[in-house]
Amino acid sequence: MAETILNRRIVMAARPSGMPTAENFRLEEVQEPRQPPQGEVLLKTLFFSLDPYMRGRMDAGPSYAQALEPGGVMEGGSVCEVLASSSADFSPGDIVLAGTGWQTHPRASAKGLRRIDPSLAPVSTALGILGMPGMTAYTGLLNIGTPRPGETLVVAAASGAVGSAVGQIGRIKGCRVVGIAGGEEKTRYIRDELGFDVALDHRAPDFAAQLKAACPDGIDIYFENVGGAVWDLVRPLLNNFARVPVCGLIAQYNGVAGGGMGSAVALRSVLVKRLRIQGFIVSDFAAQREDFLRDMGGWVSSGQVKYREDVVEGLENAVPAFIGLLQGRNFGKLLVRP
Amino acid sequence: MAETILNRRIVMAARPSGMPTAENFRLEEVQEPRQPPQGEVLLKTLFFSLDPYMRGRMDAGPSYAQALEPGGVMEGGSVCEVLASSSADFSPGDIVLAGTGWQTHPRASAKGLRRIDPSLAPVSTALGILGMPGMTAYTGLLNIGTPRPGETLVVAAASGAVGSAVGQIGRIKGCRVVGIAGGEEKTRYIRDELGFDVALDHRAPDFAAQLKAACPDGIDIYFENVGGAVWDLVRPLLNNFARVPVCGLIAQYNGVAGGGMGSAVALRSVLVKRLRIQGFIVSDFAAQREDFLRDMGGWVSSGQVKYREDVVEGLENAVPAFIGLLQGRNFGKLLVRP
Repeated sequence: MAETILNRRIVMAARPSGMPTAENFRLEEVQEPRQPPQGEVLLKTLFFSLDPYMRGRMDAGPSYAQALEPGGVMEGGSVCEVLASSSADFSPGDIVLAGTGWQTHPRASAKGLRRIDPSLAPVSTALGILGMPGMTAYTGLLNIGTPRPGETLVVAAASGAVGSAVGQIGRIKGCRVVGIAGGEEKTRYIRDELGFDVALDHRAPDFAAQLKAACPDGIDIYFENVGGAVWDLVRPLLNNFARVPVCGLIAQYNGVAGGGMGSAVALRSVLVKRLRIQGFIVSDFAAQREDFLRDMGGWVSSGQVKYREDVVEGLENAVPAFIGLLQGRNFGKLLVRP
Repeated sequence: MAETILNRRIVMAARPSGMPTAENFRLEEVQEPRQPPQGEVLLKTLFFSLDPYMRGRMDAGPSYAQALEPGGVMEGGSVCEVLASSSADFSPGDIVLAGTGWQTHPRASAKGLRRIDPSLAPVSTALGILGMPGMTAYTGLLNIGTPRPGETLVVAAASGAVGSAVGQIGRIKGCRVVGIAGGEEKTRYIRDELGFDVALDHRAPDFAAQLKAACPDGIDIYFENVGGAVWDLVRPLLNNFARVPVCGLIAQYNGVAGGGMGSAVALRSVLVKRLRIQGFIVSDFAAQREDFLRDMGGWVSSGQVKYREDVVEGLENAVPAFIGLLQGRNFGKLLVRP
């Protein structure tokens, strides 16, 4: 057996300005030792995740996460099989949740890994409904949104990995859920498959009027995960004591067409309506992981929460898939099987 | 004994635009029956409160409270002695907290009254440190501000009834407290009498630089009770996970010189810094009244929380005192002994 194994990976060739293009990425091939150094493991990537937040990491400048430097491997969550281990904690054949990003055969410290039980659910769900997007929806909605039966919950990007979970949890908690998505296929999905009470197409020319008509009792919770135009329409419809969780997943669409968190809220309306507006990212609620896995695992098993995956084959296809994601062209949790 | 008693009261003669003047008020004299109708009591006002929020009530337009109509009695909290009662719940001589506003001998429904025990503290404190301003400070700081030891708390209007309580509770909770007030007398008071760690004069030409220097570790809690210029200086100093309770007491300075809640916050900074910005008024936390009275009563008794009252004698003097309050000319909780 060779002493090394080929690891193919995609790095950021240069920082993008606005929407990334193929020129911002580069495929590299490196050799990794078959026997990893002490405390590390050699992995085979089964799936890695593509998420909008990755666009933010490509920018310099302050954010809640460290920026990626040019030449650095595109980061992100991954589900991997352990090929070789120099750690007492993992054995070959184990399936683990890792953060190794866009590579085929990464080496990783055992410390950053979490074992996945493949008998509980398809392992890919550890990157989606039972992973970061699902937990973002769960923690943001329950901790900040605090849904109560009969309240009106509005969710933008409602067919996405986070939004679709937010809406379904809202339904479980007894809310009237109004979802916003782009195009008829997605609106039909959230209404007919996911059971949202109302599904609105934000591309409709009379979208503003539709949103108002869909919320005759006002809006009690707006799960903010897009920024921009929808917020401006939602704001006047907010009820007293409305809660607005501001979700970090697509934090950094700034400069990318169709997004932008440039919107603002006046302190006067915060006060007069007694609004609660709160930003968060999923790691802020890391202590709730067990609660999340128990609840969401149960809902997925029972069929109360459904999810949809969009699996792209081949490492090279990660780049166009990622650009498509930023343009809103995917439908379901976007994964790459490299 | 006469069958009626003279009640002198001040009504709003006409809505003000901007800062009120004497012409916006009118003194009226009416006769009240010595024996009130069933379910009501006749009161003698010992103290009534002057608060900035009363300016807001004088405006038309939507807010969290009903607007006052021209010809209506100026509303507000009062501490009164029961002169005569047609209610089984109150007897002559009882001291009660009422909401009868700017009048000398009001009649009131027994339902809206709360008995005060004069043996616990001076009865005037029911309008101040043990009343709405104190409870505004307590509930807003503890529920939304969630102070932790070692954190930096910034309080504007720090010599006022709310701000002075916020800062002292912050100290009790282990925060480093930076207070902002206008002029040397007030800054000296909050630093030397109330024990704030730092006292800044917002009139100082280099106030912005002083504020930054006073918060070398950034700001974890900003108790927003003024709006406008201070917020704009505080915002860039906010730490990740900072909390901003937006207090309703002086909600409606809009149009009045020196105030204004016209300031805004960008959703992007809410997200990147994971800010929590939440508006409230004291009645939102009405269920915490017993906790408040127990804690604050104890702190006042032990001397851990101090308060200052500014008592104006004579009903007629309420008008100039109120205008002075809106101009920041009072020092301590402003009360009228009519």
